[in-house]
Amino acid sequence: MKIARFETGDSIRYGTVEGETIREVEGDLFGELTPTGNAYAVNTVKLLVPCVPGKILALGLNYALHVAESSSNRPAPTQPEPFYKVPSSLCNPGDPIIIPPGAGETHFEGELVAVIGKVCKRVPPEAVLDYVLGYTCGNDVSARPWQRGDLQWWRGKPCDTFSPVGPWIETSIADPSKLTLETRLNGERKQHSGTDQMIFDVPTMISFISQVLTLYPGDLIYTGTCDGVGPMDDGDTVEIEVSNIGVLKNPVIREKE
Amino acid sequence: MKIARFETGDSIRYGTVEGETIREVEGDLFGELTPTGNAYAVNTVKLLVPCVPGKILALGLNYALHVAESSSNRPAPTQPEPFYKVPSSLCNPGDPIIIPPGAGETHFEGELVAVIGKVCKRVPPEAVLDYVLGYTCGNDVSARPWQRGDLQWWRGKPCDTFSPVGPWIETSIADPSKLTLETRLNGERKQHSGTDQMIFDVPTMISFISQVLTLYPGDLIYTGTCDGVGPMDDGDTVEIEVSNIGVLKNPVIREKE
Repeated sequence: MKIARFETGDSIRYGTVEGETIREVEGDLFGELTPTGNAYAVNTVKLLVPCVPGKILALGLNYALHVAESSSNRPAPTQPEPFYKVPSSLCNPGDPIIIPPGAGETHFEGELVAVIGKVCKRVPPEAVLDYVLGYTCGNDVSARPWQRGDLQWWRGKPCDTFSPVGPWIETSIADPSKLTLETRLNGERKQHSGTDQMIFDVPTMISFISQVLTLYPGDLIYTGTCDGVGPMDDGDTVEIEVSNIGVLKNPVIREKE
Repeated sequence: MKIARFETGDSIRYGTVEGETIREVEGDLFGELTPTGNAYAVNTVKLLVPCVPGKILALGLNYALHVAESSSNRPAPTQPEPFYKVPSSLCNPGDPIIIPPGAGETHFEGELVAVIGKVCKRVPPEAVLDYVLGYTCGNDVSARPWQRGDLQWWRGKPCDTFSPVGPWIETSIADPSKLTLETRLNGERKQHSGTDQMIFDVPTMISFISQVLTLYPGDLIYTGTCDGVGPMDDGDTVEIEVSNIGVLKNPVIREKE
């Protein structure tokens, strides 16, 4: 099932997506959802980030070919290496990624994003997928000079609009290691990988994080990007597609220095 | 005015603190607050973290004497160096700081914490204090091995319970550079500094952050720790006191490895 969060008129609703139709539901995204009987054409509503996370983690260096292409000269990590993006950096499907003055070369990073569905603390890898509501697509927008120059990645990754997520949550994926991830810049394929190429798979990374942080319903885990990252700039359009989920598409605006 | 958030019975309320009394108020913490007429003795209610932040930033290396004592061998920073703590790491006044297995040597870091009062984006330093609701005390609990060993400080600083904040928000501080910060471990003074010793003062740091991140009402900014940080362990009690505000006191528990 694909669950979208959307705006129509001045209200925010949830709905299930079937083809070109959103069927409105009410209730609890993490519990019971009941159809209201209202339906909308997808292209007549504004899709939003499909949940409201309290926190957002992202994995660095989680595909071997991305580690190899990265300029950090680090060996492949021996443990998951999370960092934070923040809710104020979220960007709806279709909304512009706005590169602020001073950001310099700014890259797209297409990723599979896991949505936590239940309170998750110290859950072993073999049980952790029961705590995942579903999956969506994300762009881990990265301003490389800030990522390299700052003590911590407080703005290299989490500037306003640097966390596009969507277009909806797919709840029917049994195995997140059997998906295909693709990023297109202005229609041209730039990144392409199976999610089986992750160094630390979804159960391993979420279990690891949950040893010391409680994860709550709606929290998001960006699971890392594959090779092929590259710059995007004013006027570009970036699409992140994950098989079985859909396409997250955002235009890019660079503000004047 | 001191504004506390507290629990009594099974409800969460706000109130103004005068001496040993909390006078309950209702309304909007960031707008108008009106007394309800109810009052409680402070020692009969449970104080909570005094607001509900969407994000929490903290400044690294913001007092010269702390930079000098730190093992990072870094020169004093030439720009504010924020990092993230997360809302799930908040710890109420009086609640235990729980050091999880694997954390190793874990330090207290007493700090002045600014509470954002209005949406703040690209505000110049000379105007930024109008966007601050008030100030409280914070302990930036730091697991040193994780801080040194991980790619980013995703768990060295933001484990569950690693962000004690409170006991309330003081809204009447005109100049946050004229305060005194003190940390006591089991009653013994360990840290002591004027906040005039910050390398980047409160207006400078918040203005800097607001250039690329929108700050929202309730967001917290830990403003950095002075020299004298050190280890705390099972059975210890840590008090952070900031003049004109109050004392934030938490016991420490270390979980078995």
